[in-house]
Formats: sequence, C-alpha cells, structure tokens
Amino acid sequence: MRIVVLAGGIGGARFLRGLKRAAPDAEITVVGNTGDDIHLFGLKVCPDLDTVMYTLGGGIDEEQGWGRTDESFTVKEELAAYGVGPEWFGLGDRDFATHIVRTQMLAAGYPLSAVTEALCARWQPGVRLLPMSDDRVETHVAIEVDGERRAVHFQEYWVKLRASVDAKAVVPVGAEAAKPAPGVLEAIAEADVVLFRRPTRSCPSARSWPCRDPRGGRRGRGAGRGPLPIVGDAPVRGMADKVLAAVGVESTAAAVARHYGTGLLDGWLVDTVDAGAVADVEAAGIRCRAVPLMMTDVDATAAMAREALALAERYAGDRRPAYRVWALPGLPEVAAGTTWPS
Amino acid sequence: MRIVVLAGGIGGARFLRGLKRAAPDAEITVVGNTGDDIHLFGLKVCPDLDTVMYTLGGGIDEEQGWGRTDESFTVKEELAAYGVGPEWFGLGDRDFATHIVRTQMLAAGYPLSAVTEALCARWQPGVRLLPMSDDRVETHVAIEVDGERRAVHFQEYWVKLRASVDAKAVVPVGAEAAKPAPGVLEAIAEADVVLFRRPTRSCPSARSWPCRDPRGGRRGRGAGRGPLPIVGDAPVRGMADKVLAAVGVESTAAAVARHYGTGLLDGWLVDTVDAGAVADVEAAGIRCRAVPLMMTDVDATAAMAREALALAERYAGDRRPAYRVWALPGLPEVAAGTTWPS
Repeated sequence: MRIVVLAGGIGGARFLRGLKRAAPDAEITVVGNTGDDIHLFGLKVCPDLDTVMYTLGGGIDEEQGWGRTDESFTVKEELAAYGVGPEWFGLGDRDFATHIVRTQMLAAGYPLSAVTEALCARWQPGVRLLPMSDDRVETHVAIEVDGERRAVHFQEYWVKLRASVDAKAVVPVGAEAAKPAPGVLEAIAEADVVLFRRPTRSCPSARSWPCRDPRGGRRGRGAGRGPLPIVGDAPVRGMADKVLAAVGVESTAAAVARHYGTGLLDGWLVDTVDAGAVADVEAAGIRCRAVPLMMTDVDATAAMAREALALAERYAGDRRPAYRVWALPGLPEVAAGTTWPS
Repeated sequence: MRIVVLAGGIGGARFLRGLKRAAPDAEITVVGNTGDDIHLFGLKVCPDLDTVMYTLGGGIDEEQGWGRTDESFTVKEELAAYGVGPEWFGLGDRDFATHIVRTQMLAAGYPLSAVTEALCARWQPGVRLLPMSDDRVETHVAIEVDGERRAVHFQEYWVKLRASVDAKAVVPVGAEAAKPAPGVLEAIAEADVVLFRRPTRSCPSARSWPCRDPRGGRRGRGAGRGPLPIVGDAPVRGMADKVLAAVGVESTAAAVARHYGTGLLDGWLVDTVDAGAVADVEAAGIRCRAVPLMMTDVDATAAMAREALALAERYAGDRRPAYRVWALPGLPEVAAGTTWPS
C-alpha cells in the first residue's frame, strides 16, 4: 500500500509514528509543510521537516515535541551576548548543525528536496520525506499593535507573541509562485490513500493557498483522505482558533470540514466528543466517522491511523474527476525580528 | 602616541597584550591579517581577527592560544554525524556564534570592517581592530601528493597536514585585486610608529603580496617598524620554515631581514641568541638590536614591546620618501575540504 501524508510539525510527526505502526509494510511518502520555514541568523530553518525527521529518527525531544533531545544552547547564548536576536526562537546547538548543513547545501545549489534527502540519510526516518516545495514560502501574519497594522513572520506570531493578539490576515508569501517539489505530484498520483491531519497552524485556509489539481483533470486512482483532529470546539493546541478566525472559519470540526469541502475531502474523522457533528459533515457530502483522535501515545495514534485507513478503504475504487492537493510554495529574505549588534 | 600594528594570529595577539601594557596610553590600531580566512560550513571564519579579539577581550583559550575558553563542540560533532566536514578544523560552539553573526552581517551587505567593529562592541579589545581588507583574500598552498600537484587552502596545509609536506608555492588568491579596508591607510599615515611581527605563517613573502605605498609617494611623518621574532635559526612555532622555504628564504633572522629589505623596514629586533646577526642586518641598511623576543608572559612581552618602541624612537623625525605596507587583498568561494552527506 502506498500512502501519502501531508504533514505539519509536532502533530504530524506523532501521527506518522502511529501510522508506521498501523501499516508497517506501507510505502509512506510524507509531503512536509514548509510554510512555517524561516531564516534565522542567516540560516534556513525548516521546523516541520525537522520535527518529522527527528521524531521518526529517534532524535526528538519527546517532552516538548520539537527540537533535539539532550540539547544545549551555547550558540544561542553567545549570539545573545553579541546582541544578535531573535532570542525567542529556541535553536539548540544540535539543531543548529542541521540548519548549517541545510544552508550550506542550499547555497551550493542543491534544492531543498535534495538537502532533505541528504539529512534523512542520517536519520533514516523510515518514510520518504519530501518538502511540499523547493520554492520559498513563508507565512506572514498581519496584526495590529497600538492601532498600527504590521506583518510578522508566522513564527514570531506563534512563538514570540503566542497568538496573544488577533490575526487580521494570514499571508502565505511566495505561495502563488511556488511549484510542488519533485516527486510530490507523482507520489500523490500513485498513492492508494492520501491522508492529512488538521491543516498546520500556519496554514489554516485552503482558500489562501493555491489549490492545484495534481492529475491535471484526469480521473484519479481513488483516494480517501483522513483525520482532522480538531477535538470539541477548540483545537487541541489551543491557539489555532486565532488563526482560523483570521480566515473566517469557526474552530469546530463541522465548520472546518465545510471549509475544506468536497473538492478536497472524501472522508473526515472527528473525535468521539464531536459525534454530534457527523451528520452535519456528511450532509456536506463528506463521509464522516467519530473515533478517538487524541494521540495520547503511539498505540492510541496507531488505532486512529487504522480508522483513517479503514475510512479510506470505503473509497477504494471510487473514481473522482479531480481532486485537489495543497501544493505550496520563494520570496525575498525577510528574517523575522533580526537585530544587529549596535 | 599613535601606534599601528600589523598583526596575525596567536603571536600577534599576545604581542598586542604586551604592547598595551607597555604603552597604556597609546592609541593602538591593529590591522589584522585576513589572508588566513576561510569558508567552513558556509560560514566566514577569520581566525586571526578572532584570535586578536578573543585574546584582548578576555575570551581566549589561554592554553592553546586560539578559540574560546570553556568551549564545547556539540555543533561540530553533529556536523560530523551528518557526514559533513571538514573535521580537522576545530570550531567550537561559542566560536560558531561569532562566525554565524559575521556571515549573516556580510550577507546583509555589511563590509568586514563594519562587522569586525560590531563584534568588537562585545569584546572591547581596547584597540581599534581593522581587517587589512574588506575584500576576500585566501592563501592557497601548492603541494605535491603522489607526484601530483594540487592546491589546498592554507588552513588545510597548516592545520590538517601540519606542514608535513613541502609547500611548492604560496598563492594569496585575490591579493592583487584587494584594497586596504577603510581606515587602514589613514591609520598608517597618522601613526607615530608602525610595528609588525614576523609575517604571519600564511604570508611569508613580501614579494608575493602587493606592496603598496599608502602615502602615495608623499614623505611620511616618520615611522620606525619593529620586531620580527624569528629566534635562532628556526621559527618559534616550528613549521614556518616550510613556508619560508617555498618563497626561497632561509629561516634565519638575517635572511628574513634582508628579504624584507630597507624598502619596508627601518628597524629590526632579533633575539639575544641571534646577537651575531645584528651586524649583518645593519649592513643591509636596517637598524638592529638584539633583545629577548620570547613572549613567555605578558611582562616579558611588554618588555619586548618597549624595546621595539625605543628602537622606533630613534627614527622619530626621520623622513623617508616612501615606505611600503602590506595591504592585502576577494575571490570565488573555495571551501576547503568540504564534504557532503552522501
């Protein structure tokens, strides 16, 4: 079985760990979100790709879900001693090495997909990890501070401001011009099932992304698409509602399902506490099941992945005229919150 | 008193510490060698500037004379885990931060001189530290391996190969096109005395460097020039003789003095063990004194610096039609020994 997963960061990585257990013999291709990417200290940082790579490769800090285990912060402290920021992004020494290798290879002309493959040669994640695009995309968020509107990098909004102010708009800079990375469309075209979790925090709106038909209008080979873990009326991680609000979507399972709509989704998992929304979702033309979606441990996650695969199976053989996949997307360097020694 | 010192790495930094003690009220401008600079892991590394900065700023590893005190090597170990080299250059975590700041500022368009000033804002070295040039210069060494001639970066020759093979030629790539950094010629023009130590290891030959007349042929304000610590018949650090041989100069005090000649030098200090060479040097038209040159501690170094200043004073008021200063030298990126993850 060939499975393609469109995955973000912490949640996506944990979901993948469960999926590997649920389908140990499957060929899994992960199309990793790069919309959260950021340039920090002149280095290219791809938080979501790294979280997937570290998690599946056994190098993740399990407790916080991101960054490396057994991490130290000497480089960051020294940068702060030079007065060079930003200080709010937690880059550890081990993590720095990843960004240094990536940046050096990019500067030497390798595309991000080749760099990611090279990094994975070390981590052996057990899946094929592709960036969604080799082109640069960065998600910026419009906020209002003291009555003045300004744009901040998504990471600044999320990590520094902790979504404490309203997001007026979410702008995926570079998304329009970006092309899917080599292998992405091919993997989707050959997949038995395409799964995705809740859209990543930085990318709440399908509408704000370029929707592409990877099969160019050909009928697909049949693909179900799975779980979106919005549990109850609030996202599990607590802050995504701010971003959803910016694109005019309620943070309820049914509202998000309607937002994606039938053009994107065949099936949809909601949490058991949202069982009441099943009829609502199905009324919108999307098959829906209520199952436990909380990824409390690998076993629970594997069970959830099995439910997603089972739901997808119901669509096996189903042919749809076209379906859409988010294909993201380069832009001028905007290093968030960069400061120089004075 | 205004003193300009043309300085290399470890020895230059230690000499400067003695000079500051010997002349606490002097305005000291250091023109730092950048001919040993190298790109490692995509980062701009300026070993000599950093050694001066760390030494005078209290951050140096005193025992080895280079790199930071209390250093760790997490980033380097992680890079090695990715299979990314070179491994032979000892970049520590604290040191990495310096190169990251420098590289980021250079990429943002700041010249090396401005970057160096920004870095010194933290270290407060008590001297004005200027790179000899904002243009890129890298010293490459031609060697023969298994009968085949090839060029290596000076750092590879020096640090990795430990000068274990003969240097067939020393090539300062970019030197011809390089201009002195802003402030260098002005500092020399206004100096009461210009001092330099033994030419840095990577730059053994005045002939291989562009010699420039910083005063454009005007008569100078009078300047003596000082010590060159080649002690006995072999350089103190033991390997420079290989490099001197490549440019056809014996590693004796007298031979080096003759090599520089009267066009560059007014005065010359030799070690007391070389007292016999004094007459020889003076016969070549260069005033010479034999004094202890071993920089065993700061006091001994300060004493040596006083001798240099005393010798220079003998030339106060002396006018020379022109004198020469080494002004070095940009080039395409050649990262020494770079390897990629396979």
